[in-house]
Amino acid sequence: MERDVAIIGVGMSKFGELWEKSLRDITLEAGMYAIFDSGVSGKDIDGIVIGNMSAGRFTGQEHLGAMAADMGGLAGVPAYSVEAACASGGAAVRQAYMAIKSGEHDLMLVLGCEKMSDVTQGEAINTVSVATDWEWEGMFGATFPALYAFMARRHMHQYGTTEEQMSLVTVKNHKNAQWNPWAQFQRPVPLEIVMKSGLIADPIRVLHSSPVTDGAAGLVMCSADLAKKFTDTPIYILSSEQASDTLSLHDRRDITTMDAVVRSTKSALKESGLEIKDIDVFELHDSFTIGEIILTEDIGLTEKGKGGKLVEEGVTEIDGKYPVNPSGGLKARGHPIGATGVAQIVELALQLRGDAEKRQVDGAEKGLAVNIGGTGGTSIVHILGR
Amino acid sequence: MERDVAIIGVGMSKFGELWEKSLRDITLEAGMYAIFDSGVSGKDIDGIVIGNMSAGRFTGQEHLGAMAADMGGLAGVPAYSVEAACASGGAAVRQAYMAIKSGEHDLMLVLGCEKMSDVTQGEAINTVSVATDWEWEGMFGATFPALYAFMARRHMHQYGTTEEQMSLVTVKNHKNAQWNPWAQFQRPVPLEIVMKSGLIADPIRVLHSSPVTDGAAGLVMCSADLAKKFTDTPIYILSSEQASDTLSLHDRRDITTMDAVVRSTKSALKESGLEIKDIDVFELHDSFTIGEIILTEDIGLTEKGKGGKLVEEGVTEIDGKYPVNPSGGLKARGHPIGATGVAQIVELALQLRGDAEKRQVDGAEKGLAVNIGGTGGTSIVHILGR
Repeated sequence: MERDVAIIGVGMSKFGELWEKSLRDITLEAGMYAIFDSGVSGKDIDGIVIGNMSAGRFTGQEHLGAMAADMGGLAGVPAYSVEAACASGGAAVRQAYMAIKSGEHDLMLVLGCEKMSDVTQGEAINTVSVATDWEWEGMFGATFPALYAFMARRHMHQYGTTEEQMSLVTVKNHKNAQWNPWAQFQRPVPLEIVMKSGLIADPIRVLHSSPVTDGAAGLVMCSADLAKKFTDTPIYILSSEQASDTLSLHDRRDITTMDAVVRSTKSALKESGLEIKDIDVFELHDSFTIGEIILTEDIGLTEKGKGGKLVEEGVTEIDGKYPVNPSGGLKARGHPIGATGVAQIVELALQLRGDAEKRQVDGAEKGLAVNIGGTGGTSIVHILGR
Repeated sequence: MERDVAIIGVGMSKFGELWEKSLRDITLEAGMYAIFDSGVSGKDIDGIVIGNMSAGRFTGQEHLGAMAADMGGLAGVPAYSVEAACASGGAAVRQAYMAIKSGEHDLMLVLGCEKMSDVTQGEAINTVSVATDWEWEGMFGATFPALYAFMARRHMHQYGTTEEQMSLVTVKNHKNAQWNPWAQFQRPVPLEIVMKSGLIADPIRVLHSSPVTDGAAGLVMCSADLAKKFTDTPIYILSSEQASDTLSLHDRRDITTMDAVVRSTKSALKESGLEIKDIDVFELHDSFTIGEIILTEDIGLTEKGKGGKLVEEGVTEIDGKYPVNPSGGLKARGHPIGATGVAQIVELALQLRGDAEKRQVDGAEKGLAVNIGGTGGTSIVHILGR
């Protein structure tokens, strides 16, 4: 029997440079908070899925499924991890969604984690580059800032997008993050500081880029019928869709559009029977601020080329028509790669439950998250409803 | 609607030290063969899942989902990879099984791959150690040969298992592999050579150990109703079960038993309504030959402690009562980590179709595969039937 799937618990570790904690510490922390929040006990959990990209390179540890089960006192429970570059967290949510829908699992712990700060800066850059097309991009020195710089420059050329607009995304997301207790940067940053921050790959500046972050996020998900036993405020997954694109940027028909996002968003809206204007709150993958601008276009909040205007006009503010990244997004909440897609869903669940405190979007009933891998080689879209 | 799931196509790359090929070459090769074998065309495929452990460390490339979709001319198709150490391949099969059962996917390409020979011997050993408990085992130099040596020594002490019995597993699996065109070592090896081969971690010798291997394996899986459109000989997945155990060996109640195997096998038999004696052919995870001996006990082919006798008495030969590893197993087919679990299912499908040529188990109708992660921290069991 095909079943509806609900989120009944959410948890996060603090995001940041967590020198004093290990990968297993933060993963356990997020998982325990999610379990506490849900009211289930360990013995109710019949499966664990973890989103992670590169624990093997960052920390020397793979086999994270057994690790998480063991650390959580749940040795015995089936557990594995999934990888889809920066969309690994979204992939984990989608795997749990399918596993529960299939009837093979009833109540699962979903985790996302990455510990990025225990290696040198150079090794961190090389490790993140495993998500590029290594043979055609990464090996030749094309890091993600460089690839997103191509996209930004072309977007500026073709649509007149400005450096100020890219900077305004930073200003908005930092403003939002001051109200997010788990965010890496809980402070506003003025426009002029963003505009004057160091240039990494012209036109992308350091404050247009998401940081290197340690962090983990967790969800308890179960079948909708089971959810009522544990909570009065289950959040339902109305649709879960995924698409891929060419791995390398240079193979795309248009580097200012992420076709995988367009496709997976269309499918997700169709599956849920909603239109984009029915959605109240958005978490969009802003690994670079040009990414948020492109995504607002590709999911249909505005026409292609007008994403810059959207942020300029305040439409994507928490009190705007289409609030984007009330959490602070990847830019200010931080971007522990495997955790990001799960953290997006945590934020949406809190928003739909009305538990997002000072960053609450008034009366939010439907939320949409886009989690991207690489430069858009993977896109995973979830629509949630209460 | 919960649906039955079938395998309609299988494919393999040659296993071995493939210096002249890249990870994407061999992955593409296995996938293409599986697609050709199935008779589907690219446009029928609506999802890709890849089992892989450490491509990030071995080759610099993660984001393998998008890579495989792109290389296969299938950019657009949702794709991701799953990791459960040496059970990553089995995990990929299980993910596809759930994805199809959930109704989210109808026809999927399942791949397993690892390219292990492009790094130094030392880096290969370190990379494989990501599947140990890194903080409590690997970091202190406890490699897999060392950990399995503990298990072997204890098994010998407790049950009188002999070095000769461990060596006879090698002899059997090498004998079988001479008839497997994809195997890394297609030649028999006499008992005295095994017994005299170099000692790695007493009592484990080099010829008790699976090799470092490059290789990929592929399956086309779909819903049972769809299968009939493409083939007259679909092979059905009768059950798919998984369990975990403590990540580190020293935390187990008994290091001569893999509890995760016991549990997942029991569940799989129950789910399929079969008893172990109903199974005609077995693929068991023999990363070290003591592993095959332990698994024959843990799945119930004999009592605990009598696995050594089983191989001695010829019970696990191709023409024995319980043929184990007609493919040559990990020992002789080779063990490209993420590919192994998929290759096991390829072999069982060929056996049940009657296509296993000189290594065919006469009239095989039911097959069982056990894919292990680490020292048994993960176990994934599939039962197949025609």
